[in-house]
Amino acid sequence: MSYKSKGINAERELIHLFWKNEWTAVRVAGSGSQKYPSPDILASNNLRKLAIETKISKSSYRHFSSKEISELKEFSERFGAESWIAIKFNRKGWFFLSLEDLKETEANYSISLDIAERKGLAFSDLIETR
Amino acid sequence: MSYKSKGINAERELIHLFWKNEWTAVRVAGSGSQKYPSPDILASNNLRKLAIETKISKSSYRHFSSKEISELKEFSERFGAESWIAIKFNRKGWFFLSLEDLKETEANYSISLDIAERKGLAFSDLIETR
Repeated sequence: MSYKSKGINAERELIHLFWKNEWTAVRVAGSGSQKYPSPDILASNNLRKLAIETKISKSSYRHFSSKEISELKEFSERFGAESWIAIKFNRKGWFFLSLEDLKETEANYSISLDIAERKGLAFSDLIETR
Repeated sequence: MSYKSKGINAERELIHLFWKNEWTAVRVAGSGSQKYPSPDILASNNLRKLAIETKISKSSYRHFSSKEISELKEFSERFGAESWIAIKFNRKGWFFLSLEDLKETEANYSISLDIAERKGLAFSDLIETR
């Protein structure tokens, strides 16, 4: 299976998780390839709206381009949603991180498995109404 | 161009209209073909969220299945969005209708060009903050 297909499968898995937990969630068409900023997933429980950028990682480390992060921020501010990063590490499952938890380097942002495990939320924590 | 491609083009046209007018809008992936209810388009100006089902019509008449309408309603209630129908008639452009403006028949809902012209909103009216 291609890396892209694996990514889409991971997004679908997240969509199922949301619906299973009484949230609504949709995948955004053409995210990452169209001219307007857009997240991979939009989810809501009516009160909270989440704009989510998803990634899968085979190693213990994952990059995000500055453009991806700034577009996620811009979209969320304009849409009225919280910005979240969802990252799935091989054999470790999903971690949900806010943008402040990403480490900014000169050209991009990165997240390590170590930081994800220390700062990331599990799905059940993410959807707890705050 | 296939009817489906024309439909997607029409959706893209609407997306452009929203962004041009300082709104955000995304197309939903796999809308109509996936197991969860979902609209074709989600748009927001931060305050208002719109869940939109889009249709194009070559004639002066267009059907909507009861399932399409009930799923749009369900999604909107759970997501926290207004439900809207966007219908583009040949050479007449876009009309935006709320669900109450659809005529319910025994098996489905329908909208005629006549009703669209009398009850439908133009895009500029749709996005006026109420």
